[in-house]
Amino acid sequence: MARKAAIIGGGVIGGGWAARFLLNGWDVAVFDPDPEAPRKVGEVLANARAALPALSDGPMPPEGALTFAGTITEAVEGADYIQESVSERLDLKHRVFAQIQQVAPDTPIGSSTSGFKPSELQQNAANPSTIFVAHPFNPVYLLPLAEVVPSAVSNPALIEAAKETLREIGMFPLHVRKEIDAHIADRFLEAVWREALWLVKDGIATTEEIDEAIRMGFGLRWGQMGLFETYRVAGGEAGMKHFMAQFGPCLQWPWTKLTDVPEFNDELVDLIAGQSDAQSGHHTIRELERIRDRNLIGFLRVLKERNWGAGKVLLDHDARRRAAMPVPVPGDGPMECARMTVLPGWIDYNGHMTESRYLFAASETSDAFLRHIGADIAYVGTGFSYYTAETHIMHLGEAKLGDALTGTVQVLAADEKRLHIFIRILKDGQPVATLEQMLLHVDMSKGKTCPAPRAILDRVAPIAAAHAALPKPEAAGRHVGRKG
Amino acid sequence: MARKAAIIGGGVIGGGWAARFLLNGWDVAVFDPDPEAPRKVGEVLANARAALPALSDGPMPPEGALTFAGTITEAVEGADYIQESVSERLDLKHRVFAQIQQVAPDTPIGSSTSGFKPSELQQNAANPSTIFVAHPFNPVYLLPLAEVVPSAVSNPALIEAAKETLREIGMFPLHVRKEIDAHIADRFLEAVWREALWLVKDGIATTEEIDEAIRMGFGLRWGQMGLFETYRVAGGEAGMKHFMAQFGPCLQWPWTKLTDVPEFNDELVDLIAGQSDAQSGHHTIRELERIRDRNLIGFLRVLKERNWGAGKVLLDHDARRRAAMPVPVPGDGPMECARMTVLPGWIDYNGHMTESRYLFAASETSDAFLRHIGADIAYVGTGFSYYTAETHIMHLGEAKLGDALTGTVQVLAADEKRLHIFIRILKDGQPVATLEQMLLHVDMSKGKTCPAPRAILDRVAPIAAAHAALPKPEAAGRHVGRKG
Repeated sequence: MARKAAIIGGGVIGGGWAARFLLNGWDVAVFDPDPEAPRKVGEVLANARAALPALSDGPMPPEGALTFAGTITEAVEGADYIQESVSERLDLKHRVFAQIQQVAPDTPIGSSTSGFKPSELQQNAANPSTIFVAHPFNPVYLLPLAEVVPSAVSNPALIEAAKETLREIGMFPLHVRKEIDAHIADRFLEAVWREALWLVKDGIATTEEIDEAIRMGFGLRWGQMGLFETYRVAGGEAGMKHFMAQFGPCLQWPWTKLTDVPEFNDELVDLIAGQSDAQSGHHTIRELERIRDRNLIGFLRVLKERNWGAGKVLLDHDARRRAAMPVPVPGDGPMECARMTVLPGWIDYNGHMTESRYLFAASETSDAFLRHIGADIAYVGTGFSYYTAETHIMHLGEAKLGDALTGTVQVLAADEKRLHIFIRILKDGQPVATLEQMLLHVDMSKGKTCPAPRAILDRVAPIAAAHAALPKPEAAGRHVGRKG
Repeated sequence: MARKAAIIGGGVIGGGWAARFLLNGWDVAVFDPDPEAPRKVGEVLANARAALPALSDGPMPPEGALTFAGTITEAVEGADYIQESVSERLDLKHRVFAQIQQVAPDTPIGSSTSGFKPSELQQNAANPSTIFVAHPFNPVYLLPLAEVVPSAVSNPALIEAAKETLREIGMFPLHVRKEIDAHIADRFLEAVWREALWLVKDGIATTEEIDEAIRMGFGLRWGQMGLFETYRVAGGEAGMKHFMAQFGPCLQWPWTKLTDVPEFNDELVDLIAGQSDAQSGHHTIRELERIRDRNLIGFLRVLKERNWGAGKVLLDHDARRRAAMPVPVPGDGPMECARMTVLPGWIDYNGHMTESRYLFAASETSDAFLRHIGADIAYVGTGFSYYTAETHIMHLGEAKLGDALTGTVQVLAADEKRLHIFIRILKDGQPVATLEQMLLHVDMSKGKTCPAPRAILDRVAPIAAAHAALPKPEAAGRHVGRKG
């Protein structure tokens, strides 16, 4: 049975949490007295549905059920996890926790607070040990970071379980060991924000110039290495000490304005809002959200290909899901080898899956088949591999963004050196493309074909024998342009 | 004739400048009294050669000539542009400028200084009007940002010409209109660095935890939108004013430690260097550089696909180069339609170009052919397009990272609805793959074939007629697995 998360507060952050839980198969109950909450949560969920599946290389679990509760009591009833994302007012948060704990005194309560310490959140609580900080970053459905901050009275086992819950929904729980105002990340954001307000106020730079100064330079660096690793590399072989010796003294220079806080008045607000309109006003917020999400998906997939940083979180999440899935067993028909989702990067300017991605999907399918018969990456490491010599493709249908595709393999013929296979790329059970391929077993060091080893041939033989009984596909043996 | 850049100071930053100029076809003379400078510059150049071409979708220009000069005078002689990247000491920089201006009083001199204002750099100079800040970001050969800061006595025409030079080598010159210590970006870096030192010193977080707090969250955001655009989106439809009203008062909170500077002593250096070793010490600096560069290439290509942020700079740079290149003219043989470089993302675990990328290269080739006959993106926008119905691929050779590939098209047959073409993907003039394709002209709204318009057919006809005289390729009409 699906587990249940209660989301208290249904704004952009609460909506993001709801989307993450739902798309990872949890049921979600949202409480927010704002009558607009269902619309707002629905919009975030629509964004998330268009984005989060593009990060996964396996099928998504069935989406959980979303309900809107009339009261906090109703929302948290039977919940396995509660996330609070109401406005940043301590008295309000205290009232919410009190109501929750009247009916759910033992359930973990994560707070999305940017600034409050867990010991402040826990004040006067019926059960302070279940309340902790779980601070996410917008868009919550894409960015993996959640700062998890316990206090001295927190229940360590409950904190570990909560971190495991966050991993299950694809997040990266960063355990902050010592509580502090604004945790870690927002201290940096606050320092940058304050400095940026000065630069605008003093007329040094506009909002647009500041944004370019960030995203054309250090912003790109920080998506994949943080501050210290970046500087370690900059220090070169001499290392971190050298870097610090070189730049340490600069701290004494009058570089930052930070001994003072700019006066926050209407004039400053108007100045910044006006510049921001000039910079970004030609896009609606919805457009900017889509642009941002597509960029983030691209970055995250780049990191996933490299098993680095946030990409490692995604790969671990896939592996965790895969371990929970049944392993496909070869049956009597063509063998199901791969399940894929059409990703944003697979789409051409027609809005369809781009031509070469059909061959890519076939490669994913044949790679899985080769792994199944023992010709996996470890085998390639020994200097042997199957190479594709020849392919014939029939384009029979169109796949679009988000479509679920299945790849099947039918063995047409096999001998010691050759594997003659027929791949179907199916959407809703119907082929959108078929690919006939001749694979040759190759000694890579000699660049020549050679017989495959007995271990592989013994795995191919029963599949080939079973497939010999299947009807030969009409497209097999066809050449380009043959009539009918 | 190639233009010449003089690079004064051959460390990581000077080497990065040298690499950018060289790979964009400029000759470069480096002056650095350090006998290790040629080795150091050589290492940066090797990194750049492995990285920068992967951002280009056209052929790179012939690399310029690199020389090491024995004196500043020799280095700057005949230079069109001079970039100074010596240590961050004002007296040293003044001496360098004085020596340069003895022989090259009118040549633009950009300084890589992180902190000094241009008016400080210009003090006592023979010709202050040519000296300005051109502050880059490491790795200089990948990150586009260069902060260009003139002073009141700078020559505006010279500054504009210098910005044009920076654009020519693929950079994004950000004109900082008002000089200030540390310009713009480094004020933020300084604020974050200072705060990070406090967090480590106070035992709140380790260097690794701080880096995760950055790269799992806001770092990813800042690679594609800066501070203000990100917050604008977070503010939702209510906009920037709403966001500021919500978070403005937080400025008064005790979130940052920035009223004070941590004491910079051996203890702090050891603490940070030790944590950094524990975090990243299992990678060498060379490995970290390669990891960083591959990640940045990935991010930059994601943005390039979307014509956004730093990716727009890359597209503009390609367009600028393309405009300077001769347009290929259809000749008597198969028509050369595309030139491509095998990029890191095209490589599989065998170290070879991955199977589906041969079809991708063919699509690039056929797309260029379709553009040539008038079936371009604008035409697709009218609701008609050529779809590939069928493809036969022969894999004949192997392409590897960095290989230059050419795609040619031979028209086998053409009628009102059908284009039967034969594509060769060539490396050093030899085919690594051939692809026979049947393209159908489609009315996209009806999902049915229909005759192509006269304008397109008129462009196809002479090519088809010329190609009718060519020998029919052996692989045309072949089906998979045919003997011989």
